[in-house]
Amino acid sequence: MLIITYRLKHIMVVQTQNCAPNQELFNPGRTLLITNTNLNGKQSDIFIDESGIIQQIIKTGSRSLHNEAEHIIDADGDFAFPAFTNTHTHSAMTLLRGYADDMYLEPWLFEKIFPLEGCLQPDDVYWGTKLACLEMIKSGTVAFNDMYFFMEDTARAVVESGMKAVLSYSIPLPPCQLAGGDPVEEGKKTTEKFVRYIHSLENPRIKPGVAPHSVYLPSRDEIEWYGRYAEENDLTLHIHLSETKTEVDECRQRQGIRPPKYLDECGCLSSRTIAAHCCWLNLDECALLGERGVHAAYNPASNMKLSTRRAMPYSALINAGVNVTLATDGCSSNNNHDLLEDARVAAMLQKYQYLPTTLPAHEVYNMMTKNGAKALGLGAGEIKVGVPADIILVSRKNVANVPVHNPVSNLIYSLTGSAVRTTICNGQVLMHNRVVPGEEDILNRAQSAASKLVDRYDERENSTSS
Amino acid sequence: MLIITYRLKHIMVVQTQNCAPNQELFNPGRTLLITNTNLNGKQSDIFIDESGIIQQIIKTGSRSLHNEAEHIIDADGDFAFPAFTNTHTHSAMTLLRGYADDMYLEPWLFEKIFPLEGCLQPDDVYWGTKLACLEMIKSGTVAFNDMYFFMEDTARAVVESGMKAVLSYSIPLPPCQLAGGDPVEEGKKTTEKFVRYIHSLENPRIKPGVAPHSVYLPSRDEIEWYGRYAEENDLTLHIHLSETKTEVDECRQRQGIRPPKYLDECGCLSSRTIAAHCCWLNLDECALLGERGVHAAYNPASNMKLSTRRAMPYSALINAGVNVTLATDGCSSNNNHDLLEDARVAAMLQKYQYLPTTLPAHEVYNMMTKNGAKALGLGAGEIKVGVPADIILVSRKNVANVPVHNPVSNLIYSLTGSAVRTTICNGQVLMHNRVVPGEEDILNRAQSAASKLVDRYDERENSTSS
Repeated sequence: MLIITYRLKHIMVVQTQNCAPNQELFNPGRTLLITNTNLNGKQSDIFIDESGIIQQIIKTGSRSLHNEAEHIIDADGDFAFPAFTNTHTHSAMTLLRGYADDMYLEPWLFEKIFPLEGCLQPDDVYWGTKLACLEMIKSGTVAFNDMYFFMEDTARAVVESGMKAVLSYSIPLPPCQLAGGDPVEEGKKTTEKFVRYIHSLENPRIKPGVAPHSVYLPSRDEIEWYGRYAEENDLTLHIHLSETKTEVDECRQRQGIRPPKYLDECGCLSSRTIAAHCCWLNLDECALLGERGVHAAYNPASNMKLSTRRAMPYSALINAGVNVTLATDGCSSNNNHDLLEDARVAAMLQKYQYLPTTLPAHEVYNMMTKNGAKALGLGAGEIKVGVPADIILVSRKNVANVPVHNPVSNLIYSLTGSAVRTTICNGQVLMHNRVVPGEEDILNRAQSAASKLVDRYDERENSTSS
Repeated sequence: MLIITYRLKHIMVVQTQNCAPNQELFNPGRTLLITNTNLNGKQSDIFIDESGIIQQIIKTGSRSLHNEAEHIIDADGDFAFPAFTNTHTHSAMTLLRGYADDMYLEPWLFEKIFPLEGCLQPDDVYWGTKLACLEMIKSGTVAFNDMYFFMEDTARAVVESGMKAVLSYSIPLPPCQLAGGDPVEEGKKTTEKFVRYIHSLENPRIKPGVAPHSVYLPSRDEIEWYGRYAEENDLTLHIHLSETKTEVDECRQRQGIRPPKYLDECGCLSSRTIAAHCCWLNLDECALLGERGVHAAYNPASNMKLSTRRAMPYSALINAGVNVTLATDGCSSNNNHDLLEDARVAAMLQKYQYLPTTLPAHEVYNMMTKNGAKALGLGAGEIKVGVPADIILVSRKNVANVPVHNPVSNLIYSLTGSAVRTTICNGQVLMHNRVVPGEEDILNRAQSAASKLVDRYDERENSTSS
């Protein structure tokens, strides 16, 4: 039985396993003690200070830290793992979940996704991101790297969620985001304004970035401008890279060189770069990414669903020293944000394409924890003294977590996000006993936003055709 | 809020959403009314008689059936779908979950799996199957097709679970199952005895079958014997077919023909045959399977993890008229029994290997419902009047089920088994509000069985080496 004890204002509250936690538990800025958790095979207590830093890790029973903590969670033997980082998302696309599937890329994008996105309003992005954050928290993710539109509204949702994120405007901007001037200049101004806005928040959980979408959407001038701007302002540069063979072939035709070389010439490959997909890289390109210190975001489920027909050359990237991370991509090509579902697919796809020994479970585990945290520069992705407490507790009572021969194998191959009982970001409890405050309201509002979005699109189509 | 009302013995009990259901709800042989469920887009009430047959489906509110039912479940708008059928399992291998991963097939099988299985005892198979049944019930599966050892103990677990299954002894038998006589004759006798035993149970939920393992383990004589025996006794014949290229190449070397032709010569291809994997079939072989009426069991996750490097040629099989179904395989190559996780992988793998339009969501849905039920001959896999009530209720409050543009897309691409709130098999409630009676005991006993199995193996190894 899981017991939670609250010592706020000298009042003790004891709750049993299936009850909703006291709302106080979710407040930030309190000291927190996690007792009786299985951390790397040892029953441990973890003490987190009011700034969200792990201060002590001791053997359970060796010494009591109970008197020092404002909140106590008895983990009852559940596993503690570092919380996850998702390095490539378009989070508000949750609103398009299931809107279009099973299509070729071009009609899917140009006939279904782009037209509907053309009707997006800022509040849609806000509620779509709220839904995405909820989904990520419920599956153990505390940090993500997002590229989309109306990013001030994304930021608002992230601030409220308690999560961490790097946020960037996707360039070029879509018509719904443009005021009517020169689209290229509007893109630059929107990005500059957004970067200033995020800095003005002074929220250590959120960082601005830039996101020239890919080699095929912005012009060379634009890509170069964003590369320079990111360098001058020390920002993450988030870009799609060599996702499809078509992209590689077209880049060779237009630019005379393949995408990685082209981006390198544009000044876009550095240790601040997070390159999503990287399916169609050759060995020289893996080496180039390694030399430049680029972080690669592997999106196995999206790649399979959209039929890229080649998996990221994981072993070659690792051999070249590239930091490989894990991501879900947006919800219209996945169709959820459960990184544990994609962890399994990540390992399986490498085995299917390459060898049964490629990408073993513990390497997937590193991808979604410390490698991801390193790419975003938000947290450590490890549970140790002196780093931000980004921790999940994974239930030992989940049927797919029995028996335990190898906890990491179970995590990667057998469990989904539903096995996560508790999610903690920077020491703040975002979920406990699977309860996230405000969940029902988010579900209702997101459903409503999605329905109205489709209604607006249908109305516009009808008025155009009549 | 979900309200459950019990009218047993004129006593009304009302329970709210998060409470554990009254134990009475799980008793078989009672009439059951499901109200207010979303069935194919219509708010519907479903009335099930005491023999487990769907008697009426009416529009919610059109007429009250409340007075006629002993149990009532208010679905509160949750989706009703046909419960799932898993057509290829080795269910007791749950005990080996996470014991060995990320290896080449041969060392994995001969150095890890077979040696540990050599220490299996009947009670291990019982608890491993109990765990598998629990896992399947919790993820919406009510029927499966199992091939393993100590199958009387598997049958005992299935009977207790309330599920449906076709059960077969895998041939050749392993050393732990043999009494010391001629292994081939022991296999035949064990199968014959088991078939008689299952018939003696007179349980309509359980059918016996035969399972010559594959073209490469039993001899030609044995395979022919099992083919004849299955025909004479009208039994399902369950076999691995063309899983790996090595299997195909070796069959050509040894038998001079490829596996499907060889099995056909042995009298093993018919409408009673369920052929698992079918990765390395050519077009002629797809046509042969179609002509013979064979059912194919697609195991996408297992195929990826074990690196078969070719996906079942789904379109060719469909074009040849083959009934294609979905399966998880055993837990050491998957590593769980959540068919919804594999539904997503099923569609994605076809797209990755073939085209983005191959295997759309609604066809995966058919594979795991009516196609699977047809292959096993246990139920309809559809929700309609006059058939056994094999029904799941899928939560609309699961975060990955919001928004709903397309319920079947959400089911296949976004949800996992954790979204299933209620599982009903032949009209009997096996899970409600995610509660399965006796769950904690099964988890504890299965964990204990797995630990002792490894201990026995280690002791044997130590005594051999010392």
